[in-house]
Amino acid sequence: MSEWLPKKLTAVAGAAVNDIPWLAHEASSFVINHAVGATRTRPHPWSMVSEYTSWQSLTDRSYLARHRPAVPLPDDLPDPDRVKMLFARPDGRQRLSTKSTCLFPSFAQYLTDGFIRTDPSDPRKTTSNHEIDLCPLYGRTLAQTAILRLGSNEAGERGRLRSQKVRLADGTKEEYAPFLYIDRGERIDPVFAGLDPPLFGQGPAPSPARRATLFAFGGDRANSTPFAAMMNTLLLREHNRLAGELERRNPGWDDERVFQTARNILIPMYIKLVVVEYINHITPLPFRLVADPSVAWKADWNRPNWITGEFSLLYRWHSLMPDEIVLPGGAIPLGSFGLDNTPLLDHGLLALFAAASAQPAAALGAFNTAASLLPLEIAAVKQARFYRLDTYNNYRRHFHLPPARYFSDITKDPATELLLKDLYGTPDRVEFYPGLFAEDRVVNSPLPNLILTMVAVDAFSQALTNPLLSEHVYNAATFTSWGLSEIEATNSLRTMLDRNVATRTDVPITMTQPSWQAD
Amino acid sequence: MSEWLPKKLTAVAGAAVNDIPWLAHEASSFVINHAVGATRTRPHPWSMVSEYTSWQSLTDRSYLARHRPAVPLPDDLPDPDRVKMLFARPDGRQRLSTKSTCLFPSFAQYLTDGFIRTDPSDPRKTTSNHEIDLCPLYGRTLAQTAILRLGSNEAGERGRLRSQKVRLADGTKEEYAPFLYIDRGERIDPVFAGLDPPLFGQGPAPSPARRATLFAFGGDRANSTPFAAMMNTLLLREHNRLAGELERRNPGWDDERVFQTARNILIPMYIKLVVVEYINHITPLPFRLVADPSVAWKADWNRPNWITGEFSLLYRWHSLMPDEIVLPGGAIPLGSFGLDNTPLLDHGLLALFAAASAQPAAALGAFNTAASLLPLEIAAVKQARFYRLDTYNNYRRHFHLPPARYFSDITKDPATELLLKDLYGTPDRVEFYPGLFAEDRVVNSPLPNLILTMVAVDAFSQALTNPLLSEHVYNAATFTSWGLSEIEATNSLRTMLDRNVATRTDVPITMTQPSWQAD
Repeated sequence: MSEWLPKKLTAVAGAAVNDIPWLAHEASSFVINHAVGATRTRPHPWSMVSEYTSWQSLTDRSYLARHRPAVPLPDDLPDPDRVKMLFARPDGRQRLSTKSTCLFPSFAQYLTDGFIRTDPSDPRKTTSNHEIDLCPLYGRTLAQTAILRLGSNEAGERGRLRSQKVRLADGTKEEYAPFLYIDRGERIDPVFAGLDPPLFGQGPAPSPARRATLFAFGGDRANSTPFAAMMNTLLLREHNRLAGELERRNPGWDDERVFQTARNILIPMYIKLVVVEYINHITPLPFRLVADPSVAWKADWNRPNWITGEFSLLYRWHSLMPDEIVLPGGAIPLGSFGLDNTPLLDHGLLALFAAASAQPAAALGAFNTAASLLPLEIAAVKQARFYRLDTYNNYRRHFHLPPARYFSDITKDPATELLLKDLYGTPDRVEFYPGLFAEDRVVNSPLPNLILTMVAVDAFSQALTNPLLSEHVYNAATFTSWGLSEIEATNSLRTMLDRNVATRTDVPITMTQPSWQAD
Repeated sequence: MSEWLPKKLTAVAGAAVNDIPWLAHEASSFVINHAVGATRTRPHPWSMVSEYTSWQSLTDRSYLARHRPAVPLPDDLPDPDRVKMLFARPDGRQRLSTKSTCLFPSFAQYLTDGFIRTDPSDPRKTTSNHEIDLCPLYGRTLAQTAILRLGSNEAGERGRLRSQKVRLADGTKEEYAPFLYIDRGERIDPVFAGLDPPLFGQGPAPSPARRATLFAFGGDRANSTPFAAMMNTLLLREHNRLAGELERRNPGWDDERVFQTARNILIPMYIKLVVVEYINHITPLPFRLVADPSVAWKADWNRPNWITGEFSLLYRWHSLMPDEIVLPGGAIPLGSFGLDNTPLLDHGLLALFAAASAQPAAALGAFNTAASLLPLEIAAVKQARFYRLDTYNNYRRHFHLPPARYFSDITKDPATELLLKDLYGTPDRVEFYPGLFAEDRVVNSPLPNLILTMVAVDAFSQALTNPLLSEHVYNAATFTSWGLSEIEATNSLRTMLDRNVATRTDVPITMTQPSWQAD
């Protein structure tokens, strides 16, 4: 068991907890408070703006915050090209996860693209709003939101996001966002000029034919793969479904009020999915956490969110995607899976969710990054040095984990241990980023311990402090009583998907492989 | 005694509390938590942007928040010109306060000008940073701060704000901010073009000779009277004194670090004065509250600040200034006291503080506003209607005060009661703004009950949640251990003033009249 797991809870009979609502609430609150209690509360005393605390470091959220202050770096750190060996596959073969499906990295990527937004021109800075505000769907700014809205006060159109019906390969029609490009992918529709354009990454720009399949989304990474576009499409449909119901139930409401109330409902609904699907997948707990906003109402960790530089690095889960993505039409190499929504437009939303749920993700950790992604690992090692991050062991101490005294405290894998020793000599010299990924995974979790601990702190303390979940806002006045019951009735991606596709099947929609058994 | 005063405390033997540090801490914490507990915690569900909760209302702090939602206004509200009678002096004579000196309104005005910053072009909006950040001294923005800084890395100059030595009438020299205007007051020095220019208000612009006495300050209201300029000048000198000491004690520090650390120290020092001088003056408590940051560390009211529209109205304390200001050179009519720093430049900082401390303020309340200021009262009544504020009684309920059932619950003054009845018919129809000021003052406080309650909520919950006071920031790493001891040793305006003037005298520097006796 991990140190992350509260010892008190190991005595709790796992499955029984969820049968007793009161106990599920109590057990969840205990876990959440314990998890967040692994480190100090916000505000962070430091940001990337200066190496000491200043009024700007405490208030200017255009800079990333930091969990620990900058330190002097040793002169003799290993060359990043040597550190790369810790990530590269010795035999070229990919190891797969025994717990996660591809829905897990797809969800994680879409989630974190919304708030981990490091400014590419200055990695100390960020364009994040520091909240789960569904900006991949709604845009980062008021002006972008206005572009994405239909903006019509006509009956049957109020509160809607712009969308189109697309005819799939089987002839049925489904709702999608409008296409971003016109003229067969040659240029962006001027209507959408104010959106953040899709990020094309390091490789060559996609061809016009592929660009023609990209959607006008709020997020610059929401088109990055068909799985990301699938997440955003589900939320787009759910927004428009909520708007339609709100319009019908509140005939006096104008476009603006219908839109704002649908967004009010969708954000907590999504945060609920973050807890009940995503967090429950990554935790090694023998019971499922429940998403009860009240846990944060009196908590001393309920402080304004601020994304940290460390967080922007620990979520570099490059190695989680398998080398090939299996879709109804056949397998696609990972390198061709990006920036082309053809599979989604051919097969439809349900088929894509089913495909992501049907195949194992890769295993996170050492020696498992594809050769084509290794430059990203080197860049991360360099970024951590640019931030002058403290050592892996000092970050473990910071999150109340015992520091590694021997390399075998980090990993039981002899090859990883040997390479760490060769690179760093002693555990106290191991750097933050390589240390994060060299650690063995926690039993029953897809994540190593320090990553799991840091993700849990930020997931709970940033998601559950959303203003829409706060004590005097999370109520029927904000959502309507119908909207509140919609939030409360939504306990899985499956529920939301069922409401937004024409056919219902029994195929699993899951981040956890159906065959997975806890140790 | 007021309902605001916790009954439990009336049993506490007043003066003895402050003799026992532990008890002073406990009693202060009790009062502060009780005071803030008079209403719900933030975030406010509503802002001035819409009449319902929306993502924008919860996140866009360029709009003022609101304590209560907008309500439909009755069609038959009294004409503002009739409401004006509630403020006008029936016999033209001003009533004076028996408790407060003019240092009280001077301090209040300077304090609130820093964060109650309603946008004159749209009263729903604000230019506030929503924090006590000393923006009247440092400017509202980074660019303004850069303009106000000396910006020199030379020894003896690091971390300083720009200043000049001015020769007083008696020949001595004192430190002041640079003059804002050049060419004998004809035009603003281009160096300072990026500052918010001084607000000249409704009247005619001041003559060039008067403009020539205005300082280059961060705040657009910090030149509004010589008493406001006096407050800012004291803080300017204290900043430069702190910077000088920090530079001397930390020879390796550059201009930037000295400046930022001096600001780090000055803000909590000022917040301490807000509690120990200002709040202690307005509360009717039989003991003095202590400013202990730890009271907010675990508090459920430690939530991001957000100035409300109600707050921007309740601080319209027009009637607090006496009709004549007595200065060493003679009395000046209030109408000539603004936008002319000649008295400060002639007599010096100590003489101005002594003058403000030597004369009674006026009494706050009905029938006491000078004729020249009545248009501001009418404007406030109209602004409250533009905000569609709820009734006075509903605001009393909102702050856990019993609503007035009879007009005599509002005031024992027969004339005020009669006029209220004539204007509104029944207590439930009394409007927010007139109700605030028609109330009798709380015994031993310069303020009526609803104002006192609302000021206490916002003073404690916004001042004590300053990021520099937070658990992991309020320490020697942020201030240096010398800086921390400077904060802790500063318990009065007098202490700070003594450090920054050449001569020491025994004249009182006080918001409370030396002859005042509690009932």
